[in-house]
Amino acid sequence: MYDMAIHLRTDGTKRLYEQIYEHIRQEIREGKLLAGERLPSTRSLAEYLQVSRSTVDTAYEQLLSEGYIEASPYRGYFVCKMEELFRLEGLDAGSGAATASQAPPAEGAASGGVLARGRGQGVGRARYDFSPYEIDMSAFPFPVWMRITKNVLSESGSGLFSQGEPQGEWDLRVTISRYLHSSRGVECVPDQVVVGAGNDYLLLLLEKLLGRDVSIAMENPTYKKAYRIFRSFAYRIVAVDMDEDGMSAARLEQENVTAAYVMPSHQFPTGTVMPIGRRTQLLRWAQMADDRYLIEDDYDSEFRYRGKPIPSLQASDRDGKVIYIGTFSKAIAPAIRVSYMVLPPVLLERYRRECSIYSSTVSRIDQRILNEFIREGHFERHLNKMRKIYRAKHELLLDRLRPWRDRFQVLGENAGLHLLLSCQDGRTEEELVRKARQAGVRVYGMSDSYIQEPEKGQKNATILLGYGGLDEKQILEGTALLEKAWK
Amino acid sequence: MYDMAIHLRTDGTKRLYEQIYEHIRQEIREGKLLAGERLPSTRSLAEYLQVSRSTVDTAYEQLLSEGYIEASPYRGYFVCKMEELFRLEGLDAGSGAATASQAPPAEGAASGGVLARGRGQGVGRARYDFSPYEIDMSAFPFPVWMRITKNVLSESGSGLFSQGEPQGEWDLRVTISRYLHSSRGVECVPDQVVVGAGNDYLLLLLEKLLGRDVSIAMENPTYKKAYRIFRSFAYRIVAVDMDEDGMSAARLEQENVTAAYVMPSHQFPTGTVMPIGRRTQLLRWAQMADDRYLIEDDYDSEFRYRGKPIPSLQASDRDGKVIYIGTFSKAIAPAIRVSYMVLPPVLLERYRRECSIYSSTVSRIDQRILNEFIREGHFERHLNKMRKIYRAKHELLLDRLRPWRDRFQVLGENAGLHLLLSCQDGRTEEELVRKARQAGVRVYGMSDSYIQEPEKGQKNATILLGYGGLDEKQILEGTALLEKAWK
Repeated sequence: MYDMAIHLRTDGTKRLYEQIYEHIRQEIREGKLLAGERLPSTRSLAEYLQVSRSTVDTAYEQLLSEGYIEASPYRGYFVCKMEELFRLEGLDAGSGAATASQAPPAEGAASGGVLARGRGQGVGRARYDFSPYEIDMSAFPFPVWMRITKNVLSESGSGLFSQGEPQGEWDLRVTISRYLHSSRGVECVPDQVVVGAGNDYLLLLLEKLLGRDVSIAMENPTYKKAYRIFRSFAYRIVAVDMDEDGMSAARLEQENVTAAYVMPSHQFPTGTVMPIGRRTQLLRWAQMADDRYLIEDDYDSEFRYRGKPIPSLQASDRDGKVIYIGTFSKAIAPAIRVSYMVLPPVLLERYRRECSIYSSTVSRIDQRILNEFIREGHFERHLNKMRKIYRAKHELLLDRLRPWRDRFQVLGENAGLHLLLSCQDGRTEEELVRKARQAGVRVYGMSDSYIQEPEKGQKNATILLGYGGLDEKQILEGTALLEKAWK
Repeated sequence: MYDMAIHLRTDGTKRLYEQIYEHIRQEIREGKLLAGERLPSTRSLAEYLQVSRSTVDTAYEQLLSEGYIEASPYRGYFVCKMEELFRLEGLDAGSGAATASQAPPAEGAASGGVLARGRGQGVGRARYDFSPYEIDMSAFPFPVWMRITKNVLSESGSGLFSQGEPQGEWDLRVTISRYLHSSRGVECVPDQVVVGAGNDYLLLLLEKLLGRDVSIAMENPTYKKAYRIFRSFAYRIVAVDMDEDGMSAARLEQENVTAAYVMPSHQFPTGTVMPIGRRTQLLRWAQMADDRYLIEDDYDSEFRYRGKPIPSLQASDRDGKVIYIGTFSKAIAPAIRVSYMVLPPVLLERYRRECSIYSSTVSRIDQRILNEFIREGHFERHLNKMRKIYRAKHELLLDRLRPWRDRFQVLGENAGLHLLLSCQDGRTEEELVRKARQAGVRVYGMSDSYIQEPEKGQKNATILLGYGGLDEKQILEGTALLEKAWK
């Protein structure tokens, strides 16, 4: 937390930029500003202090050049990690700092003093960040988006600025239901679609639908953010270890849970695709009691490079037991705060009764822009383009990893935006992450995704290598550095 | 719920538009499509049925001309109220239908089969709708908004499409905190500001901060939507009757509650301004225990036409007991899904610890557009313009009501977007609403806003006359009709 209150002397004894620089440096040294914390933008600080922007620029430049802070394009200025600061002071931070840097971004967001940032926004000084959460925005058709925005704003007039339906604009729900049907085999009418500002919000709605005191099974390992959100609901969470087909239905039977959160088409982080046999078992489990539901998070189903598309679990559901959740964050952009949930009839009734008082969290304007973007065919075109781009990165990374086969096994290579490297030579995950880090490369240990130590223990150190946010040059250079670091 | 599944025969025995027309008419007659329910847009229905849009247009035209449905500009097509349909069938719906039409829009949104719509979207055939929820968008500077949108999209590039901070963009929080300080006397640093997609979402966050099993006091009458949301949290709600200064602090003392939801600067619907003495009492009540908080909803503080601006309750709070909530829905547009909450330090800590895992519900792009709109001075200009426009309507309405003084007392005449008419001649609210309705005018009974029968009973029938959504001509014509109806 940085309150920006700097008392500036204007008696001319010290230049303004120096006072700002010294104040911030002091706060960092005293630990009032923590590693990873974001500084205010130069513009807002200048405005706040009523000084010129160039004064703040100069102060930040000084802090940058002395290594107290670092700049991250489009994100702003961040306080450097301890490791760097200790080195600066002639101290050795040791392995503690490296361990801290292993924490995935979402972990940082949940911790105390550090200003919260969304997932995918790594901090620290790594030159190459193989984050599994980043996506590539370089090919996004900005001009098209802008043209549609302009059309929507000018054609629609003031009506579009009025409040829309809580569940989402009808037209967009029609479009989403058609898209889900054709691309994911989802069986639904537009009435079942609930549009909301992000998955987290939809899960908040779901909490209202499922009630309190829910016991929920989650795959182990899983998407940690969903775990934290369920934990914030005070749900009892039962970790069910993954086998090669996904969550074990037999284990599910033994547990006293009414809901299971699964990613059947491309499990995060393992990349496992749940075969139809296991899907049938899970659906059968859900059918055994009225209040049992499967929550299907179909988070990156759009990106599959080999074999036939995997249909959604919902597509096999004949009894209204699957709650299907998807998002445009991966396929368009995280900033497009639009996710959707397909409710089975019983829960739709409950939503109508209990949740339709909550106004929609997505502006009608944004819903309309997105709807036009999809209806005019740009979404499909963009997806096809991105599939090609990601496939090329994917193949390049696979190529680069081929010579490492004696020590690393590559897993999860059919889909998504990351690969898994399973280390066969007995080294620990912590060692691999730390060595990479020392070479300026950030990689992610799979252990971060476990919500509980697996019963049989984790076999091998496993590293996630995300390539969504890196270009081909960065993949080449990053893997070259990794090769040396892990020799 | 309307599933649009119309089985169309293509054997040429009946024209397509006729089949669509007959199908919908049948559904309305059989009550499968309910009064007030929205039909799909012609475009989406045409798309869904794979027919030309003009086919659906023709079917809708027929239904319109026969009075089964009605068109509402920018909103779409709605099934007519029973009253109209019964009349059509030669029946008299009697007072039942009139009572139904008394329900405020938010009421309708909560009820079962009717497709949910946001507040402010009245249905039915009233030619003049004195809704207290509507605002005037006619003077909104669309070209400016569009220019800023264009600039933001073109200048910012892909960075803006990445995920932002859960609490809201720093720059916008700086802007909001400065605005609140200068216009409302709110004491806060940007760190205390939480940006979210609408008040309802912020209340969902607040539920996480205050915990379960909360007992909350609400003014009686109050803003019914907030009441419904707290009820959806399973909060124990204690209705505290309003006296002429607002919520009674003495009553609050007697109740075993830890939170009170109040609108001190302009209570809805009574228009009461809480004087400083009562404010001090409430603050003192809150100081008596660590977990006591006042939730200040400052929903339309921007519009005040006489006397000095009323500062916020938060401005008098020295002990971190006030949670301040405000919105841009009234001052800019309901579609701008941006509200803000100012948290006292203890709750901010709790927010950081427990809620910063929830991603922001407002897109960075929208936050940036709004920030530029305010920073460039357009917001203030727009507010000044709207204050003038609303004041003119306000004065006009007051003028029109002056000759009615023998039978009606006018209340709440200093601020906001509605007036209150208290009937002195013993007629019931139900009678006034029904007679207005029969004359084609929709007015709103204050009893809709009571969450409990007041202890001393409701003194006089009181009618809310909102003028936000009406232009001057409509106010003149609407009041002329009312005058006749209420003679």
